[in-house]
Amino acid sequence: MSPANSPVPKETITAALLVIGDEILSGRTKDKNIGYIADYLAALGIDLREVRIVGDEEGPIVEALNALRARHSYVFTTGGIGPTHDDITADCVAKAFGVSIDIDPRALAIMQERLATTKIEMNDARLRMTRIPKGADLVLNKVSGAPGFWIENVIVMAGVPTIMQAMLDEVAPKLKTGVRMLSETVRADAREGDIGTPLGDIAKAHPQVMIGSYPFFDPQLGPNTNVVLRGRDAEKLSTAKAAVEQMLARVRGAQTSKA
Amino acid sequence: MSPANSPVPKETITAALLVIGDEILSGRTKDKNIGYIADYLAALGIDLREVRIVGDEEGPIVEALNALRARHSYVFTTGGIGPTHDDITADCVAKAFGVSIDIDPRALAIMQERLATTKIEMNDARLRMTRIPKGADLVLNKVSGAPGFWIENVIVMAGVPTIMQAMLDEVAPKLKTGVRMLSETVRADAREGDIGTPLGDIAKAHPQVMIGSYPFFDPQLGPNTNVVLRGRDAEKLSTAKAAVEQMLARVRGAQTSKA
Repeated sequence: MSPANSPVPKETITAALLVIGDEILSGRTKDKNIGYIADYLAALGIDLREVRIVGDEEGPIVEALNALRARHSYVFTTGGIGPTHDDITADCVAKAFGVSIDIDPRALAIMQERLATTKIEMNDARLRMTRIPKGADLVLNKVSGAPGFWIENVIVMAGVPTIMQAMLDEVAPKLKTGVRMLSETVRADAREGDIGTPLGDIAKAHPQVMIGSYPFFDPQLGPNTNVVLRGRDAEKLSTAKAAVEQMLARVRGAQTSKA
Repeated sequence: MSPANSPVPKETITAALLVIGDEILSGRTKDKNIGYIADYLAALGIDLREVRIVGDEEGPIVEALNALRARHSYVFTTGGIGPTHDDITADCVAKAFGVSIDIDPRALAIMQERLATTKIEMNDARLRMTRIPKGADLVLNKVSGAPGFWIENVIVMAGVPTIMQAMLDEVAPKLKTGVRMLSETVRADAREGDIGTPLGDIAKAHPQVMIGSYPFFDPQLGPNTNVVLRGRDAEKLSTAKAAVEQMLARVRGAQTSKA
């Protein structure tokens, strides 16, 4: 039992990202959204746990949607909500949720207003972008008008980075967020292979801190390593960081005395 | 029955990519391998059908490995084969295949030779990189020594881009490859919403050609679209391309006559 005045720990909020588009898998387009969304969610205190990239094909999209939405607080999707035949994301989301999809009066009003100001004509292709699964809320698109949508825990966004970013800004204030993950990076000034074993011991002794090891090449010093510690408890993080720094001093000292 | 002198159509070779690493999901490291591997496999005539990114956690890695290897000709993995406690890819592959994993004499010999020339000492962490699932072939690493491996249809590579690229060059000559996908890009000089419906009709009439539509913003002309046609049959591709070009001329003509 926790004392009455201790804060209730916030739950962990997790997310998955589903990137939809043949053009990413064929190499024609290089994804620019995954890294952006990873940074964005980390800053909000939402743990991105999984990313999938699938093509413009109903079976794989529906399967991925259903697997991911059962498992995570949120599923974000990018791509496949434009006006052409290969834009099938909205239909796939409707299918995954077992709901109908039709022209949405709110989306239609947005499109009509935008087309009126830009003097572009409405047609079947543009009408296609107003089809929204039943029960979804719209996600406004301040860049180009055609909205994304949000149904249960699935948030459907455009694939064009500027539009996706604007949509993320629209939904962010409404997302449940967890305790922000804190992170510390310690430059080892040692080869990864020289610190692997003691670092593993520290990781075992500090189970609530995630410790990652990332080799890099320093043009002056040669092979080097960054140790990254991540955790939600500042004190535990700081204790683990001190343990890593002591270990590194020991390893470097041993190497100097041998040299 | 095909005539005796017609070439036997090559089978379609598909692949999945599994990117392993907390650092990608946290946003700390921006992936540079997905786009490279997508281009590389496309050039070989191997269809990349799915990509997944998971963290350094046994359950998700094993699950993804088993789902993907059952479905595709090849599964490529990147990341998690270094010397530290968070490098668990080899163990996860062994677990997915239900085979044992131990120090591999071939990998050990490579490491010992490399350490001898670089005067770096062997230790438990470096020994960890010689653990290879039983039955696997090694994938040589000309950059830094520690090998990847290849077991059944799963090819395990490093996450560091230069090392991954060298490993891909090692395995490429041994991969089964399909008929190379051909691709044509037609610049529409029209808004995506103006060509969506007729483009969908063309896609339906040419089922063996994949037609994608990619909006972009031209600083001079404003909203514009690239139409990308992909297929393995040069003649069918060329017929579909001609249909797209005729349609675009018609749409642009209609717009000019209205203006």
